[in-house]
Parts: sequence; structure tokens; C-alpha cells
Amino acid sequence: MLKGFHYPLTPKGKSTLNPPPPWYYSSDFLNIEFWSDPAAVAALLPPGLDPDPAGSGHGNALFYDWQFTGANEEYLDPARYQYREFFLLLDALFEGKPVCYCPYIFVDNDAAIARGWTQGYPKRLGQVFQTRYYAATGKAGPALAPGSKFAGSLTASGRRLAQGLVTLKKPITDPAALKQRPVVNLLHTPRLAAGKQSKPAVHELVENAPHDIKIEQAWIGDGLLTLPVVDGEDVSDLAPVRCGKGIRASMAYVVDDLKTLKDLTK
Amino acid sequence: MLKGFHYPLTPKGKSTLNPPPPWYYSSDFLNIEFWSDPAAVAALLPPGLDPDPAGSGHGNALFYDWQFTGANEEYLDPARYQYREFFLLLDALFEGKPVCYCPYIFVDNDAAIARGWTQGYPKRLGQVFQTRYYAATGKAGPALAPGSKFAGSLTASGRRLAQGLVTLKKPITDPAALKQRPVVNLLHTPRLAAGKQSKPAVHELVENAPHDIKIEQAWIGDGLLTLPVVDGEDVSDLAPVRCGKGIRASMAYVVDDLKTLKDLTK
Amino acid sequence: MLKGFHYPLTPKGKSTLNPPPPWYYSSDFLNIEFWSDPAAVAALLPPGLDPDPAGSGHGNALFYDWQFTGANEEYLDPARYQYREFFLLLDALFEGKPVCYCPYIFVDNDAAIARGWTQGYPKRLGQVFQTRYYAATGKAGPALAPGSKFAGSLTASGRRLAQGLVTLKKPITDPAALKQRPVVNLLHTPRLAAGKQSKPAVHELVENAPHDIKIEQAWIGDGLLTLPVVDGEDVSDLAPVRCGKGIRASMAYVVDDLKTLKDLTK
Amino acid sequence: MLKGFHYPLTPKGKSTLNPPPPWYYSSDFLNIEFWSDPAAVAALLPPGLDPDPAGSGHGNALFYDWQFTGANEEYLDPARYQYREFFLLLDALFEGKPVCYCPYIFVDNDAAIARGWTQGYPKRLGQVFQTRYYAATGKAGPALAPGSKFAGSLTASGRRLAQGLVTLKKPITDPAALKQRPVVNLLHTPRLAAGKQSKPAVHELVENAPHDIKIEQAWIGDGLLTLPVVDGEDVSDLAPVRCGKGIRASMAYVVDDLKTLKDLTK
Repeated sequence: MLKGFHYPLTPKGKSTLNPPPPWYYSSDFLNIEFWSDPAAVAALLPPGLDPDPAGSGHGNALFYDWQFTGANEEYLDPARYQYREFFLLLDALFEGKPVCYCPYIFVDNDAAIARGWTQGYPKRLGQVFQTRYYAATGKAGPALAPGSKFAGSLTASGRRLAQGLVTLKKPITDPAALKQRPVVNLLHTPRLAAGKQSKPAVHELVENAPHDIKIEQAWIGDGLLTLPVVDGEDVSDLAPVRCGKGIRASMAYVVDDLKTLKDLTK
Repeated sequence: MLKGFHYPLTPKGKSTLNPPPPWYYSSDFLNIEFWSDPAAVAALLPPGLDPDPAGSGHGNALFYDWQFTGANEEYLDPARYQYREFFLLLDALFEGKPVCYCPYIFVDNDAAIARGWTQGYPKRLGQVFQTRYYAATGKAGPALAPGSKFAGSLTASGRRLAQGLVTLKKPITDPAALKQRPVVNLLHTPRLAAGKQSKPAVHELVENAPHDIKIEQAWIGDGLLTLPVVDGEDVSDLAPVRCGKGIRASMAYVVDDLKTLKDLTK
Repeated sequence: MLKGFHYPLTPKGKSTLNPPPPWYYSSDFLNIEFWSDPAAVAALLPPGLDPDPAGSGHGNALFYDWQFTGANEEYLDPARYQYREFFLLLDALFEGKPVCYCPYIFVDNDAAIARGWTQGYPKRLGQVFQTRYYAATGKAGPALAPGSKFAGSLTASGRRLAQGLVTLKKPITDPAALKQRPVVNLLHTPRLAAGKQSKPAVHELVENAPHDIKIEQAWIGDGLLTLPVVDGEDVSDLAPVRCGKGIRASMAYVVDDLKTLKDLTK
Repeated sequence: MLKGFHYPLTPKGKSTLNPPPPWYYSSDFLNIEFWSDPAAVAALLPPGLDPDPAGSGHGNALFYDWQFTGANEEYLDPARYQYREFFLLLDALFEGKPVCYCPYIFVDNDAAIARGWTQGYPKRLGQVFQTRYYAATGKAGPALAPGSKFAGSLTASGRRLAQGLVTLKKPITDPAALKQRPVVNLLHTPRLAAGKQSKPAVHELVENAPHDIKIEQAWIGDGLLTLPVVDGEDVSDLAPVRCGKGIRASMAYVVDDLKTLKDLTK
């Protein structure tokens, strides 16, 4: 019997990209609110999702420093499982219900690519960095305090695709400020067989269902996001017309499920 | 309408990991013949493939320096599309027919991961290197001549997983020496939905069908392969009990199809 | 007038590897105490340093996640200035005074290489990782609590060179437990000119003089270090015969000076 | 006795960044001729070098895929010694003699950084790629033939700093077309000691003296170079006002000497 949730499948199951779910995560993140041209947002939504008229092109950009584990202390092999991530979430409606959709996402780790593609996150490789908070603060280590600045950047295929900045104002005391719409993705597995290349094996709207979400050390302030124009890339079509609040916090959660909302192959 | 063969799907289709097939390739490669413990080979084969009794654990290890393009001069963006690869191919039988199966493969590029997973190649990220041939030879640049040595290495998740060496003896004059069995892979797309995690969305035996294969500058000699024991990895279960011939050559081909041999979900 | 502390020197001084000192640092680190074969330690010490008979091969292995800045908010460009580091410090005596010497050190950033070589740290490139602490703890994010585990690893030139593990027992309440010997390095700049290749331009014993050292969230427990045997590398000559305590903490300091103890060219 | 030409110095000398000279190289390269604003070129030249009035801002941009070895088959450890490089050479005069000066250079390997700094090449880390020629040509592998295109790119600190394109016209039959001015660099080793930070330990004009230069498969055609404006970088001050010829060839040489032309500390 071959073992392994993702490739490769082997008798012992050690070489596989990921252990079986549940998957556990801890992180630090930056979240920057922005508004794009609503037409650009509408053009990116897959069938089954509608633009949110209340949103007017509203979205969030997120930089994450992640740590991952399964059941076997995978967090003690950080060279294999620790990773960094940048992604965008755009406001949308599914059957009238407020959701958000991820059109672009980049990570620096293959295990994270595999888990992402299994959840409809359209991950590519990228080099992602964010300014870190260390308990020993100083000129090189901003405190969690009003005025402190934390920056993020994304490079993929050798091109700078995104830059962000969060300037802290105050701790978040109302947990409602951290509430996020459910993420609805396009789960997509293409077929290479001649004659079937326009008939993907899997093409579904899916809803992510993380649970046991825990947020700590959350601060809010101002956000700034730039999405530069780059040859060969579409991301800058979402270049912000304005930015809103910025958040810096720590977050943990568990992933072990995915809900199919709609099979788009039918 | 969203465009893109692989993730992400966008209105313009520029950010997608790969252009639609046909996919064109040129390369330099090292090929090292080896024999593993036949029981280790048998244990790795997926349902539907049988050990080849004629082979006694026979396989090939390959190091490739690849260049890829679609229809739009993607080879002129080497930061995005050039890549390096290491993989193993094990002799097997499908319904009595000689084929080979790829249990492990590593590349250093995300577009290559995506194309691979669409063909059943169980790719992970790795750092792959091979000694290069340059027309300006010298102490640092081995000539295509008897006695010249070309080495290859693979590191993944920070661990050295494979090393190879080819020592040239003579040019290959008989094209039959380069004949390879068809590659039959396990095409596998897991499901994350609770209750379906042991029921993959796609789980098929597939046969790769590259065409317009062109081989140049092929030399043959002796091959040497080592697959060190590494915590958290299964590759060393195939550690060679002996090695055979080694080849160094250039190769080009086209990929635009995949044949399903057997749907294993049924 | 050309500007730049390190290469390259340019009219505006923006492209230089590093801004001029003072250099500011914040970090999280793991520190693992170990004992090597005293003869292996003695063999590594440069002229002017003596083995510490009290030490019997005693040293420390350190994994650092660093953030760096000069005077111009360089910490807001983490893709350029954030980095990770592994190094060893060996007990020694300089003119009878207890010091420690750094024989091996690896970082993943070129600005850090340049600053290191200017201080006598013999830096090479490496991929360094350590398990991180996030305020949002969980299965993937160990708490600062008894029994929590933090691992570190180093890979260079594709080879795993070091692994470490710290298991926490209790917070450090006595600052004396964090006291470290001054670091004395061999500052070395070779000459390529024919006839001068054995006469380095700079060859000095130097003492590092960081100041405004600040340590936070320090925990102590057990340490474990392995230095595997690897072709082409000498590090494993220091493979621990036993390990001692392990520390995990955050640290900040400032560097703007270096003291020459002895010019070894004379 | 400690051994090692560069850091680190160890009893066996295996861990050192580089073996002692002579250093042997083989490569493929792209060379693109360009003209910058002469004032920008003049501003970059170190003391002792004068703008070449004949040149009017003339320079060359070079993308190299290198293989390196010392005396011990280092080319068989390509993960440690193979590398890629981008650099600029600007026409200048030294005491009236035509030379060229390297203001910017980027490589993806630490051994190459160390050798470069020892020769006055102001190397930083970068990700460098060039389209490759394979003997098995095709849509992904341009032939050495009129009209074939080869592209190069450089990214450093996450930013695209240079792009080049060479379109072949014809083989080079006259070796004089490949003649290059001698490279004169600024050899620079700063001092960190307080009070000496503006008094570098080494600050010299040096002339590189490679020998046994061998060039093969040289083709000439049109060159195109772009040096985009990037925050935090000065390279774009040299953005071409026009471009000239482009060359693609293979090259080998040996390095074992460096000539000091002028000590600038005096």
C-alpha cells in the first residue's frame, strides 16, 4: 500500500509533500485593506461569484510568516515546513452571501503549494518578506507601539510584484475588527489529454473552513499597498486606487476540511 | 472569461503558471543506470503496475538542465521558465508491456511543478546541479571526450538526496542505445473534504506521450549513483546495489497529450 | 566622490551592500552548549589564541533570525536586509584572558557576509532555519513554556551541516546566565598578486565590541547539537562528544567598532 | 597551521570558500554594447581613472554562466562552484591607456563573491539567468543561427535590475572583434575600527590579468539592454541612451594574478 496525502506516494509515506490533515498553523501577519477598480475585480471573479456592490473593488492584501505542522512535530523541521506567503482577497458574493476570493497567492515552499492547490489557492512560488517583531526591540526591531512600521514585499520570477506597509496606531480591543469573510476559491485541476484540455478534471467553487482560529497581539493602523506594473503579470490590474486600514497580528488555526459549493464542470 | 491552463486563472492569462500545450523542451542530461533491491522497487509500484522480472530492480537516474517554451517565446524569460530536474525511473510492466515508473522527481521551478503534476510526475522542489559542457573547454569545462567526467547532485528540504557521476567512453552511434521505455505515472489529485480524504478526485495510471524527440551529442560510459540515507525521506530505500552505464546527451521534445491507461478510483 | 562602506562604491551610495556604521540588530536565537574533542578545538585556533584548559573543548552553537538596520529604515526592506545565521563559538584564551573564537559561520544574505568579513566572521552562504515562536501558539507554534521544543538546521552547498534542538525548562532570571565571552576573530583579507598569495593584506586578531546589548524572553533548558560528517567540509571535526544547556531568547545590540588585538602579518 | 585562501581557515582547508589559485573557468556569455550618459559614467569612476573621451559613455553588459575549478576537480561539485553572473564594464583611461572599469556585478554563489572581492569586483548576490544553447535545438532551444535570440536577466534584493537581449546575425570570424580592454578595478577593504572607518585597509586600483583566454562558437548581432529605475539602487543611472552590437560565445580562462596599479590610500 502506498502512503501519502500529496505526491509522492511511497510505502512508508515519509517523502510525501504533506502529512494527512488535520494541518496546524501559527503565524505573524500583515493585513492591508485596499480598493481596486471595481471592473478589475469583477473581471477576475470565477463563474458563480458576483461582485459585491457594497464593496466597490474592496479587498485585502496579506503577508504571512507561517509555521506548519501535522501530527509528527513537522514544526521541528523548519527547512521543510516553515514558509512565507503573500495573497490578495477580493470581496465578492456567493448566492448573495458576502465572501472573499483569492485571485493571486505566492509562497516560498512546495509543501505549502501542494496544500494550497488542494484548497483552491492558486499558489505560485515567490520570495516573501515582512518586517519582524522581536521581543528585544530597538532601531532594527520595531516595538508593538503607536507609530511602529512593518513592511512586506513579494518577488516572483525575478520581478517585484507587491509592496506593503502597516503603521501601527493602537491595539485591537474589539475582536469584531478581525472578522473576515469566508474564503471561496476556484478549485481547478486541468487535464492534459488531447481533446480534454478545456475540460478540467476538477473545476469547483469551494469554501475554506479553518477552525480554532486564535488571534493575538493584534494592532491596527494605516495600510499602504502598491502593485507595480510588470511585463508578463496581471496583478497590477488590481493596483489600489486607495488604501485603508492596516493590521499586524499573530494567528493560529487548523485546516481539515473543504466544502464544495458548486461544481462548475456541469 | 478567465484564462490560464494552470493556476492562477485571470482575464488576460499572463500570470498563469503555464501557457496551454503544446509545451516545447530542450535540455542537456545525464542518465545513470542502476539496480536497486527488487523488493524496494516492487513496494513502490502503484496498483496496475507489476515488477518486471527481467529487470531485477533495474532503473535509471536522470539529471536534466531544461529550457521550456510555449508559443510566446517563454524561453526568453529564463528566470521564469528555465529549470533543473532530477528523477528516477524504475522498470515495470503494465499488462505485460515494458514501461517505467517515476517514484521521485525534484525540480527548482514552480511552472515545472505544475506541468509535472498534470502528467503524474510527483514533483517536489529541489536544488539540482550538473557539470556543464561548454564549447570553450579546459580544466573547468570537460570536453566531450573519453575520460571526461560530469557530476550531478540533488538537495531537497536542506538534505543531499542524490549524487551521480558519468565518465564518458565514446559517442553513441547506435540510436537504439538511447531508446527508453514509455513512462507510466500515477496521476493523483487528493480531496481535502472531510470524509473524502481517502477518495482522491483523480487517481489514474497514465502514459506520457512526448513526441518529436531529438537527441544530439550523445556519449556513453560508466555511471555511478548514490542515494544517501536521510531522516524523513524514503529515497534511499532504492540505494543502488550496483550501477551500470552512464550517458550524457542533449535532448528536445514536445508534450501535448497524456493517455489514461486505467482509472484506479473505480 | 564615491560613497559606500562596502562594495559597490557609487556617487549616491544607494547600491552599496551596507550603510555606514552604526549597525543595529534585533533577533531571536537558539544557543546550544557543547563539548568537542579538545584537540580539534586546539587545531582550529589561529596564532595568538590558546586553548582554554578550563574548557576541555567547550563551545556554543547559535542559530539566529536577524533583522538589521542602519540609519535609514533599512529594516523596512527585509528582502535586502533580514537574514538567518548559524555559527560556532569555541572557548579560548588570549593572553590568558577568556575569549571565544568563531571558526565557522553561515548566513543567507550578502549584506551580512560583507559586515561579517569586516569583523573577522568567516561567513559562507547557507540556508538556516529555526522553529519560531508566535504569540498565537498551538500545535504548530510552541509556547514559551516548559517542555516546548525549538529546532534549528543549517545547509550549505547543498549539504546538511548542522542540526540543533533546544527543549525549554524555565525562564532565565539571573542575567549572569546569559553572559558571553568576548568574541575574538581572525580578520583576514588575502592577496591575489602572484608572489603575495601567502602574504595576506590583512591578518589580525580582532575583538568584537557590540554594545547596548538587550536580551528578552530568555528561557533555558537542554541543548542538542549534531554536526554530520560531510565530504568537502571540516565542520564535523567538532562533532560534540556531549551537549549541555540550551537557551532560546531575543536579543538586540549595536555594532560600530572593532579592536585590533594583534597584527599577525608582523 | 590553518589552511584556506579565503575564509574560513581550517586545519584541513576543505571548508574554505576557495582553493588557492590558479583558478580555472569555462563559460557561456552574452555581451551587449551600450552607451550611457557620459556624465553618469564619469561620476562612477574611482580616483586614478579618467573618462575616455573617445567613448562618450560607452560600455558593455555581460551575462555569464560559469563553471569554476581549482586543482581538485571542484567542477564535479557544481552545487558549490557553478554560478551565474551579470556585470557592467565602462570604458575609461588609466594614465591615458584604454581600460574598462566594473562598477556593478552580481553573482549567485559565495565562492564567486570571495574570488571577486579579491580582484576588486564589487560583487553582490543576484539571480542571473540567460537563455541557453543546447545541441538539441527546437522551439525551446535556439540554434546558433541568424535570427536566434538569447535573453538575460538580473534580479537582486527582490528587484529586477537588468534585462538584455542578443539577436544573432553571423559567426565572428575576425578574433579582433572579441578583443576586450583590460579590466581595472577598485580593490577595497574597509575598516570597522572606530576612527578608521574612512580609512580603508586596502584601497587600490588593480588590473586583472587573466590568461590562456579561449573563445569558441562566437556569434555577433544586435544587442539590447535595459536598466530599470529601482528604489534603493543606483544602477539605472547608467540606463542606455542607445545600444550596439550583441555577442554570444563560450569562453575559458585562467586567473592567478592581480597587478596593483596605484595605492589610493597614500
